[in-house]
Amino acid sequence: MSTTAGNVIRCRAAVAWEAGKPLVIEEVEVAPPQAMEVRLKILYTSLCHTDVYFWEAKGQNPMFPRIYGHEAGGIVESVGEGVTDLQPGDHVLPVFTGECKECDHCKSEESNMCRLLRINTDRGVMIGDGQSRFSINGKPIYHFVGTSTFSEYTVCHVGSVAKINPLAPLDKVCVLSCGISTGLGATLNVAKPPKGSTVAIFGLGAVGLAAAEGARIAGASRIIGVDLNSSRFDEAKKFGVTEFINPKDYAKPVQEVLAEMTNGGVDRSVECTGNVTAMISAFECVHDGWGVAVLVGVPHKDAEFKTHPVNLLNERTLKGTFFGNYKPRSDLPSVVEKYMNKELEVEKFITHSVPFSEINKAFDLMLKGEGIRCIINMEG
Amino acid sequence: MSTTAGNVIRCRAAVAWEAGKPLVIEEVEVAPPQAMEVRLKILYTSLCHTDVYFWEAKGQNPMFPRIYGHEAGGIVESVGEGVTDLQPGDHVLPVFTGECKECDHCKSEESNMCRLLRINTDRGVMIGDGQSRFSINGKPIYHFVGTSTFSEYTVCHVGSVAKINPLAPLDKVCVLSCGISTGLGATLNVAKPPKGSTVAIFGLGAVGLAAAEGARIAGASRIIGVDLNSSRFDEAKKFGVTEFINPKDYAKPVQEVLAEMTNGGVDRSVECTGNVTAMISAFECVHDGWGVAVLVGVPHKDAEFKTHPVNLLNERTLKGTFFGNYKPRSDLPSVVEKYMNKELEVEKFITHSVPFSEINKAFDLMLKGEGIRCIINMEG
Repeated sequence: MSTTAGNVIRCRAAVAWEAGKPLVIEEVEVAPPQAMEVRLKILYTSLCHTDVYFWEAKGQNPMFPRIYGHEAGGIVESVGEGVTDLQPGDHVLPVFTGECKECDHCKSEESNMCRLLRINTDRGVMIGDGQSRFSINGKPIYHFVGTSTFSEYTVCHVGSVAKINPLAPLDKVCVLSCGISTGLGATLNVAKPPKGSTVAIFGLGAVGLAAAEGARIAGASRIIGVDLNSSRFDEAKKFGVTEFINPKDYAKPVQEVLAEMTNGGVDRSVECTGNVTAMISAFECVHDGWGVAVLVGVPHKDAEFKTHPVNLLNERTLKGTFFGNYKPRSDLPSVVEKYMNKELEVEKFITHSVPFSEINKAFDLMLKGEGIRCIINMEG
Repeated sequence: MSTTAGNVIRCRAAVAWEAGKPLVIEEVEVAPPQAMEVRLKILYTSLCHTDVYFWEAKGQNPMFPRIYGHEAGGIVESVGEGVTDLQPGDHVLPVFTGECKECDHCKSEESNMCRLLRINTDRGVMIGDGQSRFSINGKPIYHFVGTSTFSEYTVCHVGSVAKINPLAPLDKVCVLSCGISTGLGATLNVAKPPKGSTVAIFGLGAVGLAAAEGARIAGASRIIGVDLNSSRFDEAKKFGVTEFINPKDYAKPVQEVLAEMTNGGVDRSVECTGNVTAMISAFECVHDGWGVAVLVGVPHKDAEFKTHPVNLLNERTLKGTFFGNYKPRSDLPSVVEKYMNKELEVEKFITHSVPFSEINKAFDLMLKGEGIRCIINMEG
């Protein structure tokens, strides 16, 4: 038992006091974990677009002050009452969506959308008692998606924490707790491209590149990247992308360009932009008879997906996925193993790193669209 | 070798001379089969809605005079050059869509949409030489979807003919060559409801009832029929339908009614009406996380399928199917076997029968919406 167990921990956290304003490193108090909760020491976290999206708070209900962060790796410091699956010292990835292992979704072989712990961006408190575990001078600071990893210590529901191989380097595998697994799983678990097939990837950000990496691992022979930014192609080659299309270069819809390049359509497509026009293209570019389109990107709330039903009747399949259909606790350990056995290459996603004290630099990089993932070292 | 082989056969056929006018039983000349063709003696045919739709010729290019008919059972009379898979005496089902066994679709495990012999309602001639095999006094009569079974003899491409168990009664299994297999396969091959699951069927015509029969065979525990005509429920019970909803009885959308009845949505839905509003309901009524919606009904050419992309992202699957994803030659024999081993009940689909000379009565029944399938006995 650590000496901190059962006590409030005072540590550094990067607090967002206002929408879009630089985070401030503050000393916060982190209360001990309550029933079915665990307190984690975060060693490495990375910045994901979702953190930035909710920090900017354009279009959502603002909730401040708040501690963001949800891609991370850490070690269990202490556990609350009723926790039997984890113990202090376990190496873990906190995850923005949980797995209670009790509900109908968790019991379904197909779903990972846990009824109890499914992502909730509007909740800033613990699900057990409706309170925050973070405070400054007694004033609560809100949590974010049950993880709040921009803090040296954080408290999570046990269902939102995946125990992984302790030999896995946390400064690498921390990126597997959100975006990379989302893209990878979209391809490996949902699109399932047969060996030798042709796959189109819409959007070559981190998630799209991870989807391409999935296609590479699956043995696709052609991986066609589609992005409005042609400068992304060079980087994308490292992830197995063999051809590139910029829709701006063509007068006709990109689904027609793809059909011409592929004798009628690609075998699989994965949409990682969230733009509804790209979603429609990603669906309509798959081959009739067997094509499968997988939607990953989250659209605008007023977006409408439209297509002629005959595109479906001609035996195309349209599926959406959430977190690559991975069940966080059951499946993430195996994703870490894919890295450990060198099947999955994680290093190429990591383009930058900063000490925790310079976390705002990671935001600047993402806002400028530079790099893929920036690792934030909590000890720096 | 039969004495008719190689010769023109004179026989009776029901000729449609004009759109929507009663068929006329005429003596026609049926030329011998050419390369890769077979000539069949039709023993039983049944009437499917597609025959009526093209006979009415509302909205399509009219093509008259024409011999309709595509649900049938018969015996091979003679074969043309190059035909090795069939021989005189074989019991067969002609099918409106073919299987060449050579193209990419036929070689795909998933598709049944043969590139060469896929349904073509605009072609009234043989694919080999662009000629009709039917004539009256030297004037050609058009074929319909490669089958034209409203004739005592017809000529088909070998790829459009499935060889079946000769012990199977043709007056029963003839209905398996179109509508019944379409609905059955939509459920068994595409929706694949797990045992004990809940399935919604939209539209309780022949195809929808066959989809329900598929759900019954798959072991679904709740089969919810949705139809605007409440009088169909009693009949539907015979096909395993356990509950019934008439959307007209509710102020809210039927997908909401279904979600309330099923703790969030059905496990599978099969849409057999072709109405685009029903298609959208059928998609939106499936449970997030694992629900699969299958579209079967053919929509209006200007129809647009619309939904919020989040309905997909929440891990719903939307698929279309054509002829229940059965490959006609490879798979129909096994559907006949399902009947032979009493797994599939065919008799309950057959509500009427008429002699060939009274074929127009079958049209009257369908136009009045009476019954499910009317068998036409070619010897009568």
